[in-house]
Amino acid sequence: MEAKTKSRDNNHLKAKGYHAGPGELSREFLSRSFKAVRDFSHTLAEPLEIEDYVIQSMPDVSPTKWHLAHTSWFFETFVLSKAVKGYKSLSPQYAYLFNSYYIQAGERHLRPKRGLISRPTVEETYNYRNYVDEHMIRFMDDADESEWKEFSPVIEIGIHHEQQHQELIVTDIKHVFSENPLRPVYMTNSDKNGKPAKGAPPVKWIDFEGGVHLIGHEGKGFGYDNEYPRHKVYLEPFRLQSRLVTNGEYLGFIEDGGYETPELWLSEGWAAVESRNWKAPLYWERKNGKWACFTLSGMRSVNTEEPVCHVSYFEADAYARWAGARLPTESEWEAAASGQPVEGNFAEKLSFHPGAHASVKDKHPLHQIYGDVWEWTQSPYTSYPGFKTLPGALGEYNGKFMCNQFVLRGGSCATSKSHIRKTYRNFFPPDARWQFMGIRLAKDRT
Amino acid sequence: MEAKTKSRDNNHLKAKGYHAGPGELSREFLSRSFKAVRDFSHTLAEPLEIEDYVIQSMPDVSPTKWHLAHTSWFFETFVLSKAVKGYKSLSPQYAYLFNSYYIQAGERHLRPKRGLISRPTVEETYNYRNYVDEHMIRFMDDADESEWKEFSPVIEIGIHHEQQHQELIVTDIKHVFSENPLRPVYMTNSDKNGKPAKGAPPVKWIDFEGGVHLIGHEGKGFGYDNEYPRHKVYLEPFRLQSRLVTNGEYLGFIEDGGYETPELWLSEGWAAVESRNWKAPLYWERKNGKWACFTLSGMRSVNTEEPVCHVSYFEADAYARWAGARLPTESEWEAAASGQPVEGNFAEKLSFHPGAHASVKDKHPLHQIYGDVWEWTQSPYTSYPGFKTLPGALGEYNGKFMCNQFVLRGGSCATSKSHIRKTYRNFFPPDARWQFMGIRLAKDRT
Amino acid sequence: MEAKTKSRDNNHLKAKGYHAGPGELSREFLSRSFKAVRDFSHTLAEPLEIEDYVIQSMPDVSPTKWHLAHTSWFFETFVLSKAVKGYKSLSPQYAYLFNSYYIQAGERHLRPKRGLISRPTVEETYNYRNYVDEHMIRFMDDADESEWKEFSPVIEIGIHHEQQHQELIVTDIKHVFSENPLRPVYMTNSDKNGKPAKGAPPVKWIDFEGGVHLIGHEGKGFGYDNEYPRHKVYLEPFRLQSRLVTNGEYLGFIEDGGYETPELWLSEGWAAVESRNWKAPLYWERKNGKWACFTLSGMRSVNTEEPVCHVSYFEADAYARWAGARLPTESEWEAAASGQPVEGNFAEKLSFHPGAHASVKDKHPLHQIYGDVWEWTQSPYTSYPGFKTLPGALGEYNGKFMCNQFVLRGGSCATSKSHIRKTYRNFFPPDARWQFMGIRLAKDRT
Amino acid sequence: MEAKTKSRDNNHLKAKGYHAGPGELSREFLSRSFKAVRDFSHTLAEPLEIEDYVIQSMPDVSPTKWHLAHTSWFFETFVLSKAVKGYKSLSPQYAYLFNSYYIQAGERHLRPKRGLISRPTVEETYNYRNYVDEHMIRFMDDADESEWKEFSPVIEIGIHHEQQHQELIVTDIKHVFSENPLRPVYMTNSDKNGKPAKGAPPVKWIDFEGGVHLIGHEGKGFGYDNEYPRHKVYLEPFRLQSRLVTNGEYLGFIEDGGYETPELWLSEGWAAVESRNWKAPLYWERKNGKWACFTLSGMRSVNTEEPVCHVSYFEADAYARWAGARLPTESEWEAAASGQPVEGNFAEKLSFHPGAHASVKDKHPLHQIYGDVWEWTQSPYTSYPGFKTLPGALGEYNGKFMCNQFVLRGGSCATSKSHIRKTYRNFFPPDARWQFMGIRLAKDRT
Repeated sequence: MEAKTKSRDNNHLKAKGYHAGPGELSREFLSRSFKAVRDFSHTLAEPLEIEDYVIQSMPDVSPTKWHLAHTSWFFETFVLSKAVKGYKSLSPQYAYLFNSYYIQAGERHLRPKRGLISRPTVEETYNYRNYVDEHMIRFMDDADESEWKEFSPVIEIGIHHEQQHQELIVTDIKHVFSENPLRPVYMTNSDKNGKPAKGAPPVKWIDFEGGVHLIGHEGKGFGYDNEYPRHKVYLEPFRLQSRLVTNGEYLGFIEDGGYETPELWLSEGWAAVESRNWKAPLYWERKNGKWACFTLSGMRSVNTEEPVCHVSYFEADAYARWAGARLPTESEWEAAASGQPVEGNFAEKLSFHPGAHASVKDKHPLHQIYGDVWEWTQSPYTSYPGFKTLPGALGEYNGKFMCNQFVLRGGSCATSKSHIRKTYRNFFPPDARWQFMGIRLAKDRT
Repeated sequence: MEAKTKSRDNNHLKAKGYHAGPGELSREFLSRSFKAVRDFSHTLAEPLEIEDYVIQSMPDVSPTKWHLAHTSWFFETFVLSKAVKGYKSLSPQYAYLFNSYYIQAGERHLRPKRGLISRPTVEETYNYRNYVDEHMIRFMDDADESEWKEFSPVIEIGIHHEQQHQELIVTDIKHVFSENPLRPVYMTNSDKNGKPAKGAPPVKWIDFEGGVHLIGHEGKGFGYDNEYPRHKVYLEPFRLQSRLVTNGEYLGFIEDGGYETPELWLSEGWAAVESRNWKAPLYWERKNGKWACFTLSGMRSVNTEEPVCHVSYFEADAYARWAGARLPTESEWEAAASGQPVEGNFAEKLSFHPGAHASVKDKHPLHQIYGDVWEWTQSPYTSYPGFKTLPGALGEYNGKFMCNQFVLRGGSCATSKSHIRKTYRNFFPPDARWQFMGIRLAKDRT
Repeated sequence: MEAKTKSRDNNHLKAKGYHAGPGELSREFLSRSFKAVRDFSHTLAEPLEIEDYVIQSMPDVSPTKWHLAHTSWFFETFVLSKAVKGYKSLSPQYAYLFNSYYIQAGERHLRPKRGLISRPTVEETYNYRNYVDEHMIRFMDDADESEWKEFSPVIEIGIHHEQQHQELIVTDIKHVFSENPLRPVYMTNSDKNGKPAKGAPPVKWIDFEGGVHLIGHEGKGFGYDNEYPRHKVYLEPFRLQSRLVTNGEYLGFIEDGGYETPELWLSEGWAAVESRNWKAPLYWERKNGKWACFTLSGMRSVNTEEPVCHVSYFEADAYARWAGARLPTESEWEAAASGQPVEGNFAEKLSFHPGAHASVKDKHPLHQIYGDVWEWTQSPYTSYPGFKTLPGALGEYNGKFMCNQFVLRGGSCATSKSHIRKTYRNFFPPDARWQFMGIRLAKDRT
Repeated sequence: MEAKTKSRDNNHLKAKGYHAGPGELSREFLSRSFKAVRDFSHTLAEPLEIEDYVIQSMPDVSPTKWHLAHTSWFFETFVLSKAVKGYKSLSPQYAYLFNSYYIQAGERHLRPKRGLISRPTVEETYNYRNYVDEHMIRFMDDADESEWKEFSPVIEIGIHHEQQHQELIVTDIKHVFSENPLRPVYMTNSDKNGKPAKGAPPVKWIDFEGGVHLIGHEGKGFGYDNEYPRHKVYLEPFRLQSRLVTNGEYLGFIEDGGYETPELWLSEGWAAVESRNWKAPLYWERKNGKWACFTLSGMRSVNTEEPVCHVSYFEADAYARWAGARLPTESEWEAAASGQPVEGNFAEKLSFHPGAHASVKDKHPLHQIYGDVWEWTQSPYTSYPGFKTLPGALGEYNGKFMCNQFVLRGGSCATSKSHIRKTYRNFFPPDARWQFMGIRLAKDRT
């Protein structure tokens, strides 16, 4: 198998803006990845009751059932229905119900109405997953070399696509549960592997050099189109903090009147503070003079040593201004993270809560640079110079969102370790808070 | 038991504006009613999947699970927690979740958020129902005479209250299913007892006399506060049509451009037509040049012989104007219905679709005056002269909605026969369409 | 002229639902009325700066300029363009700009956009008025008898129509000025003829008999279609308060927590209190622990002896409930007002503020029954039995608003004395507050 | 005077991020600029009727009266009230009414309510302007050296600030007039100096080199804080089109179904197309099969040779994608424009319409790079590395808008020539269309 893989024409993939190193797109590797990732979705859904699968608590959130079906629809639409002669969908209407935004892939059910759909039932949804899995596994076994060349990169995207939705399953069910006054618990021991540190390490400023840096995917291993092409960026010398901003530090901002001081905020940010009555991060509640927060293990006191989480870009930016610092640009972040291994508190730990300082045992200068929380950068999400979208419906994957969003880097406690890398660009509108989002401060060196 | 009942002081009830005839509030009768009505809720929910119980498809709609819990909460709050020493709720938070609008009964969960609550699960909800039922049955068996005097009228209201919610279970699940592109079927044979007539009977105008009429509840049997007190109303001579307006007749209005002719509409009605793009009754769809409609048995062709249904007050009023007639007042309707027995196509038939002309076999002049569809009257919902609300939270039952609503009379195919009577006043805002609502025309005789 | 008038065929008018007594539709009378009423519009606008004419401070409000033009458009559209051969509008586009809601009279400019129209200028608007007036006066002089028969009733409506808009000019400019932090003054001495009484007379309950009453216009003098036909209504015995509710009494309601007690309110009313943050009547402001209110003479302290004003139906209804009373029905009001002359504090006094107890010198039992403030009744605005609309566009005058509005009776300090009568039915939605609206309490006698 | 100026400490200004070259901040120069710019506001308002000054046709638009007052408030607040002992405002409430968004300068009247304010009148507003001007001129004459050092840079900002509002006076009144069905004309001959060219020059692609470029203000002459500091940017080689995209070219996009092809649009852009029903640039209308557009000289046919104008970022971006090109980054634009003089169709010509190819007589490669229309870049509006805001309320000038806006470059036919420069960064949200906004295409050279 390896011999074949070595000889395949990587230019085909490069043209699409993706590149996989030798062996990575082997059938064995992809097939094993496919099964493992599909299984992990079931692991994540395992603690849920049937009723939990159905709910959409706000337009940004999708029901778990929808995530499970949509990721299957992806394989059906972009692989099976094209590659497998005579393939029949279990239900042709699923294509309408479970398309998300791929306009070129046909009409689609409106996003804010995903919570109105009780059928297919959860059981039918799992049947659909099994049906797609069986056909996918058969295809991966049986495809001839030219089929493999054509579809293996799409399967690879599909796997990464499912990992993205796995993160959303976690963050969405957190939001769903938070809306219920009964405050259901997702996993009693959800943070067993991530128990709160006794104390956050003292913070340091780490210096980085300016000059022309190379930014973007190097071409080895998987990358999304938006990470390409690798290109030069001129950076001024800068510094980053050695660890994430903690709840304790953020409480200083709150207690200093941060949420009542318009000068600290972007104009749109202040409007959000006023219209939504923000007084603290999402999921925080003031009870009897103390701050508690909702987690996937239920309500608990705010731990001052843990990284602050569930803050919007507006809050991260205001906090940085209050602290006499700023947020890093995404190029600074990537340049700084370059030397460090991808280690940290990820979804595989089933902790789903940031804060495991102890477990990092980090000899590297930038603690928690991966995992725990996504780090807001001050960079609006735009295309890299020379950016090309994929042809066809997959071209809608990333480019069409390059407007009014900001880049986040580094992954979170709900991201799979195999999904994240230093060039990975996540993006959300500046008022989004329901992802595991936090803050690392930057400064000019001059 | 009967002896006791006979001697009980009905004045107590009269004072509250309710009255039950001899024997009706006997323990045996109430207890049997209680069990039968509570069971019928389960009969209605039986065809549903767990996922179906959770959904709120618009603010007016509540999830089935909510209806099942709220009706139990009613008995718990207004009977058990007051009458039974040491009664403990299965979960104190249910009081918050399942209160609807009784401000005096404490804080309540917001109506439009009922569809965000996956817990308690359906199973837990049924456990709650059983728990309440057990305590209620024990109380009805054990209450001493003074307790019985105090709480039997409340139990009676609770039973009628549950019947109201049974109608909503049916109309709400119809709306929920209609939002699903898969168009789930509630009961394949839902209209088995109400198969479409071969032909609607020819319509006649029936004349009624003017003069002073007595309107309102006579005091025998159950009645809501809004049906009291019985009072005099002066009516001019009038005529009513012998049957409901049919789909065929309503198609005449559509095809004559009714929905494009502003002169036919109330000002607010025309605004609704334009802003919501109304072109036909709710649940109607134009497919390949033909009209189909969604029913609880799935999609089917519009049957021209059946009564038109799911029209708003605005549409009923515009249709009447187009037809050179008008809607009846509620006093006219009540005066006209006075001589007729309460018979028709009701919820007990499990048909849930209007249209059974054949089954009526009506020798009375006004066909379908009960059942099939609620009949819009031109009367805004107001208090009768001398109206008094019940004391305490139950006083919120009816009076506080006396604004911007219109009265409907006669019950529908989703109303229980034992729930309806000639003085019964249903009311909805003029733009509501999701109930089984239809049209009977009236005219002045002069 | 009188002879002719006597012989004219009143049936023509009766058929339209209007009737004028002998002599009233004489050319002389109508012509004099026309000039006087048209002049009074100018009197009302006289204190305004050009800039004031342009503003629409909320969708319900129209710019003064619009009122002046629209009332002219009425005469142009319904008289001149039909009656005068070869009549040319000064600008054909005015027909589009100044139509209000007469769908049958052609396309119209959207109501909420009236404040976006700087042209025609104020000067051009007065030119338009003069142009229409000249043609109208010439027509009234020159029309032959059959033209006069046809158009004199329309001219009469046009005059009353202009009087309605005169009231709106006053109430709308009050709202416009209230939105300006500079709080401009309309007339320094606006209440010179209506200086606050030293003390409101003590309140009494006046009893009225029940039975069948005749309600509606008797056919002598002008009346709108909605006042017809005269018909029988059965009333229970009732009582009305001898005078309007005062600011002092209403302060009792406020201080007793009326605005914080949901049980006192209709369900929609309470929603309005919460969403709009109502704490007092419109135009009231709390300053240094004291209540002040904005008037057309500027800000001044709330006078406890004056009638409360600028309250919605919701507030009037809640106040009545708090006071252990209720609002009258419109039939009760009309029956009670029957014996009293039309006297009071009207627009002609140029006071534009309720409160002149002294000036009434009322020997009649119901003080202030006319003038000062419109009195909310508990009657939804509906058609009288046998109601017929006028044919054509004028038929849109009243009937199409018979939905979600409540009737007010008696006129206000902004109503012309010659415009009001005991059968006059004003109507507004239950949340409207910007008219001069107040409260008179009623009670059952039983 | 010059000698003094030479010796003044420019570091003070540099610290604030502004710099003026020798002689420019001389009293003579500033004083002359002040008078000229203040006068030009009057020139712009001269064609208006009083009524025109009052209107706010959408929240983004301010009434002319407001612009005239607000620019005076700026001088009063940031110069007179600080620099002139005992200075008294003509009306203290103006500070509240005419503050725009400077939170640190005190409470302010809500932006969307600017059109509700008829007072102060236009005459009073001019009086206010005169009052401020007199005091300013006296201050500029009398200030001692240290006062001059402190306040001359603020006066300079005030002058540029007024020029910004002059552009808004023009674009806002265009929008106001466009909402009036009478379509008023601002200047009959508004484009006398800008008559449509016989033919747009053929378009060419001009090549530019990559590498490290210096971007940002060089420190000579006035610049806003957001143009600082000058810094290095690495650019790939690129090409720009020699002239602006024309109406004729844009018609090709329309006729090719550009507005019906979602693949061409950003996700948010497509949502805007659908929800606002965009089919062409703002002010275009389809009449009898031909495109006309509203200009400040009234309606006229769309001239295919003129630059397309009044397009949003979304439309510019979609057009570029359709044309197989892209928009330039702001760094590319600035690098490319560096060699060219600031010449073009500016506000001083009183043309207020793009299109004067003939008048450019441009020997430079990039035609129309200044004037005519602002050119959308693909760069989100962010801070330059090392960006510092001004201290105090003036620090709110630019930085707080760095979110969800895109940069435009080059000025328009409504921009004063003395106001624009190559480093000038204008910014608007991607859906804004009412400014004179157009398109220049870019491409990668690789």
